Order: sequence, then C-alpha cells, then structure tokens
Amino acid sequence: MSGVPTRWQVRAQRPIAYDVIKTPGLFDPACDALLAHGRPQGRRFVVVDAEVARHHGAAIRAWFDARGVQARIQVVPGGEENKTIEVWQGLLRALDAFPIHRRDEPIIVIGGGVLTDVVAFVAASYRRGVPHLKVPTTLMGYVDAALGIKAGINFNAHKNRLGSFEPPLAVLLDPTLLATLPRRHLMNGVCEIIKLAIVRDRALFEALERDGAACVAARFQDVASEAILDAAIGGMLDELAPNLHEDELERKVDFGHTFSYGLEARHADRLLHGEAVLLDILVSCLIAERRGLLPAADAARIFALVQQLEIGLDCALLDAGLMWESLLDRTLHRDGLQRVPMPAGLGRCVFLNDITRAELDAALPALCARIQSSHEPALER
Amino acid sequence: MSGVPTRWQVRAQRPIAYDVIKTPGLFDPACDALLAHGRPQGRRFVVVDAEVARHHGAAIRAWFDARGVQARIQVVPGGEENKTIEVWQGLLRALDAFPIHRRDEPIIVIGGGVLTDVVAFVAASYRRGVPHLKVPTTLMGYVDAALGIKAGINFNAHKNRLGSFEPPLAVLLDPTLLATLPRRHLMNGVCEIIKLAIVRDRALFEALERDGAACVAARFQDVASEAILDAAIGGMLDELAPNLHEDELERKVDFGHTFSYGLEARHADRLLHGEAVLLDILVSCLIAERRGLLPAADAARIFALVQQLEIGLDCALLDAGLMWESLLDRTLHRDGLQRVPMPAGLGRCVFLNDITRAELDAALPALCARIQSSHEPALER
Repeated sequence: MSGVPTRWQVRAQRPIAYDVIKTPGLFDPACDALLAHGRPQGRRFVVVDAEVARHHGAAIRAWFDARGVQARIQVVPGGEENKTIEVWQGLLRALDAFPIHRRDEPIIVIGGGVLTDVVAFVAASYRRGVPHLKVPTTLMGYVDAALGIKAGINFNAHKNRLGSFEPPLAVLLDPTLLATLPRRHLMNGVCEIIKLAIVRDRALFEALERDGAACVAARFQDVASEAILDAAIGGMLDELAPNLHEDELERKVDFGHTFSYGLEARHADRLLHGEAVLLDILVSCLIAERRGLLPAADAARIFALVQQLEIGLDCALLDAGLMWESLLDRTLHRDGLQRVPMPAGLGRCVFLNDITRAELDAALPALCARIQSSHEPALER
Repeated sequence: MSGVPTRWQVRAQRPIAYDVIKTPGLFDPACDALLAHGRPQGRRFVVVDAEVARHHGAAIRAWFDARGVQARIQVVPGGEENKTIEVWQGLLRALDAFPIHRRDEPIIVIGGGVLTDVVAFVAASYRRGVPHLKVPTTLMGYVDAALGIKAGINFNAHKNRLGSFEPPLAVLLDPTLLATLPRRHLMNGVCEIIKLAIVRDRALFEALERDGAACVAARFQDVASEAILDAAIGGMLDELAPNLHEDELERKVDFGHTFSYGLEARHADRLLHGEAVLLDILVSCLIAERRGLLPAADAARIFALVQQLEIGLDCALLDAGLMWESLLDRTLHRDGLQRVPMPAGLGRCVFLNDITRAELDAALPALCARIQSSHEPALER
C-alpha cells in the first residue's frame, strides 16, 4: 500500500498448486492416497455418486473404517438433472451438521463430472472455501470435468450459471473405476477426447481412429487405452493450466460448447453432455467445411470416426432457434464476441466472431443428411 | 506440467489488484469515478440499499441517465436480516434477466456492509465470477466490511456460512455519504474503529479519546474525522492485504469476532454487527484483564471511551451458553484452535488458545456490573 491518503493499493499473488495423480486401486486396503491430503487423523466428508456407491460403496466404507477415520459418506444421485441449487444446499446443510475443520479436513468427492462440479462449488462456498479432493469416476470426469478448477451448478434454466473457480487439493485418477461404466457413459467421455483431438492433437485423433473402438470394447483398461487417456489428460491440462481463470476467452477446449448449451439444458433427460457437445462439434465442422476452413477429407474422417465408434446421435433434437440463442448467450459469456472455436484441419483451431444464423440454419439439415447416410455401410477410406 | 505420466502438476499465480479510492461526491454530475472501471459505454447492474435510495436514488438515476448508460437500478433492503440466500438468489435472477457481459460491465453495489457482502457474493457466483465495484455507504462498510475481499451470506442460522473471497475492481469511498447516517449506524462503524485501535493502533485510540465524540457530532465530515477515518482504513488494509485469503488464521481484526457470532445470529433484530462486536470486545478485555494481559488502566480507558461515546449496550443479551457455542464454532473456523485475539495493552494483541468456559462465565456478570457503574457520572481520569 502506498502512503498517499486518497488512494490505497491492494496487491497480492494467490498461488495455485495441485497435482493430477494416476492412482489405480484407490479403495484397495493398501492404498493411502485418499488420506494423503489433509490431517490423516482428521474427519472426512465424503460425497459419493449413487451409481458409484452401488459398485464401490462397501469398499469405500470399509476403507475409511479400516483406518479409523470418522467419515460421513453422503450418497447423492449424479446426472445433469441433479446439478441444482437444491442439491448444492442440501450438501451444505449436511456438511454444516457434520462438521469439519476449515483447513485440514478436505471434502472428498467421488463421482462423475456433474457431482465433482457441484461438490467443488460446495467446497468453494462453505466458510468462503474449504479444501476438496476430486476422484472422477466417469470418463467425462477423468479426461475433462475434474481436471480443472471450474465448479458450478445450473441455475435459472442455464447450465453452470452459478459457480466459481476453485482449485482442488488434488485430482486422483483411478482408471479401474472406468471398467464398470455403461457404454453410453463411456462414449460420453469419448466425445470430449474427440473434441480435444480435433482442435489440438492430430496424433490423438489418429490413435482414436486406430484404437478407439478396441479401447471402448476393453472399457479403457488396456495399454492402448492408457496411451489415449494420458494424451487426452496431458493435452487438456496443457490447455487449462495457463488459463485457469479464463482470462483468455478464446479457449480451444470450448470447441463443441457453443451451440450445445441450449440443447443440453432443454433435453437434460435425453442428451448427455458429451452427446450434446458432439452434435455441436459436427455442426461446427459443417460450418467450417462450408467456409473452406476444414478440408472435406478431414471432415469425412471426423464423421467416419463417429460412425466407427457407434456413438448414438439424435438428429431430431437439433433446433436452430435454441442453438442460436445459445450462441447469443455464449457471446455474453465471452464478453461480447462469439469467439467460437472452429476446426481448421485435424489438430488445428481458429476462432470465429462472425457466424451467421444462415450458416447455422444451413448446417442442421446437412448434418441430419450426413448422419443418415453414415448409417449406410461405411466405405473404405 | 512435468512429463511424468503418473502425475501432472498444475501451477499458477493469480494476481489480485484493486485500489481503495477516496472520491467525495460520487454522484455529482461532474464526477466520472463510477464509470472509470469497465467499458464506459457498457451496461451496468447497480444494486442500491433501500435506505441509500431514499436519500440518493434520484441522484444515482440522474447520474447514469446523464451519461446515457443503460443501468438497471436494483433497490434492495439492507440489514442483517436480508443477508440471506433468498436475497442472493433474487439478485442473481434479476442480473440474469438484465443481463451483462462477463468481463467489461461490472456490477456496482452501493450500500452498507451487508449489501456489499451479498452483492460481492453475487458477483463471485455469477458465471463463476464477474467484476464488481463497491461503494460503501455506512461507516461499517467504509472502515471495515467493504475494504477487503470477503463476500458472503448467512446460512443455516450461521453468519457468513456461505461466501467466497472475491476481489473487487475497486472500492470507492465517498465520505459525504456518511452525513445522512442515523447516529446508531454511525456508532456501529465506530465500534470497528475502536476494535482496530485497541489491537494495533494506540495513537488511533488516543485520537478517539480526544476527537471521537466531536467526530460523531460532526457526522464524520470534519478534518479530525478525516484523520481518524484515514488511520482506520490504512490500518485495516495493513492487516488485510498480506492475508487476503486468511492463510494466516491468527488475525488481529478478528478481535471482537469470537463470542459475538451467536449473539448476532440470535438477536439480528436487536443487535447491529458493531454492537455485538463491542460486547465481545468488552468481555474479551475483562478476560484479558483478569489474566494480567491487559493493564487495569488500559481496560479502564476502553470502558471510559465507550461511555464517553455513549454507545448503547444491552447487557441483557449476554448469554454464556450461546457465546461459548460461538467460540466452539470459531474454533472449527480457525482449524481446530481458538486463536482468539486478546488485547495486551492499548495497541497490542496476542492470541489465546486456552480460554475456558469458567473465564467466560466470570466475565459476563463482571461486564454487566461495569456497564451499570459506567452509567454513573464518570470520574475524571
């Protein structure tokens, strides 16, 4: 602070430091990773996704019991329809009734992208912030949602309208948890890997072409899967880490996250996040192709990959009005410019600020036609 | 990030920079300070305390109209009973309906400490954080609540149980706004100045002894008042700035903020924040005096100052059980230790971790007796 009486200056630096750590077998009795952060003998408020609890609830309970740790295991249903202010408040009340120390008894969240987002916002809001540890259990969380510092809930019919940037103490990745995922939820995460591959990593795209279907069949438990997951995680963190608070609003990782918002908010019961993102990706590819940004051969490879991986796409959900509204809202979010990431060849990305309603209107029937035709027997490339 | 495949490291620094700026006559047509942050031609969501609107609403409206700025003036009642999740949500819905760009159209809050806390949490939560500008209109806000980065609302019957640390773009201080404050609200802020003086600034304490009563009579509009306000603001910022996120849990400015929490939560209708803080201060002084930490002469001067300034104190609200519960909750908040700031002479502070229930029980009747006796004609010092 200066000594000038009419103005005092406040200047500070806030360090952010966390690790994303691969830890197979988190709930094995011999693994200590869950208590490696915070006071080992402290209490733990543990929020577990209901689906995860079905598979691993007993193991999680036994893990804490064996260590004599006083843990409150709070089971919460996941899914976009539970990303609400009510679920957030309910968790805050349960936490307040438990309760925990402010600094050395981190909240642990074990669940999918929705739950890690909600609980991170619980941690961000309680007593102006208490520490938390994220354990993603879905592929979506594993390669995307849980890696960064974005926390949030849906509000006022808008996705993630409330939230904060809240760094975790650590993110613990246990690939064995992916083995029990239903195929549709696995594909949900694959959509984000495809996104990342298109805008920044041609080699990853080629790995998906080569090994993707086998990885899905292996529930991402084999060596080829590990390579794809590592590339996706490393690439995602390379994008996120220099721009944790989104000071730069042109973000490659926003590819597929422009037109999809409205679709997802409207059809929470019919579209998973990744499925909405993939529809957006394909619409964007068609706009980019028509502009001459994306070579037709690259667009064809993208559509072929989607077909090869047998990702279900429901063309009937496309709605130009809703998707245009999404773009307008994203424009507010991106501070007055569209800043839409667009593929400019496999592994390359540019940002557009002049997408027109007419381009969107033209892309939707083109997408439907293309998806229809891709259900025909695929041609050899 | 390292290239080691089993662990990725995320490291970043988040800079915090804002100024606290004395700007008399903020709503004068010639003053540009309210639009000096953000895009001058952008829109503004302006939240105004209902009491402030009664005195200055027309001037504020005229100020924005004269500049052709599209401003939504949202009038909200202040006071602790409105520091709720409902008021916070209502503001978020109004903001979402307005709406604003994410980065260049800062929210402006014009009001007391409660309102600046609530609106700062609105700004912190909306789209994971939008910028905001604080204009404190009460003495409590002017010397204390609005200067730092703490945002929050009450929840689950606990004060500030939800919130965040959210740096403002700037804090604009207009001392002329203090002129219309009712005496009780002026004294509310004086209690925080007394707090600061006792734990860190003997000269400020002596200025209060010398000029305090005259400053109150002058509604803090004279030269002596400016000196006291500058000392209070500078001292507060010296305490806050190196510890904005409370990484250090031993905070001198928490003096008076240990036993007062429960009193204030229970008696929101009868106690202003500063009044509860002052009760806590005096209880703490008696505990410190009995321990031999605070010389009796200093304790006497503190009680004499309170008497001289004619600050109303309602001894009947003291409740040992409630105040002890407050200490236990503060211990959770302070991560397992009491860390209670205690005066060790005028201008000096130590931290205690071993206050007993018996000490609190003994201090309460002693305080009541002392307040009673101080209503007798004061002796010359």
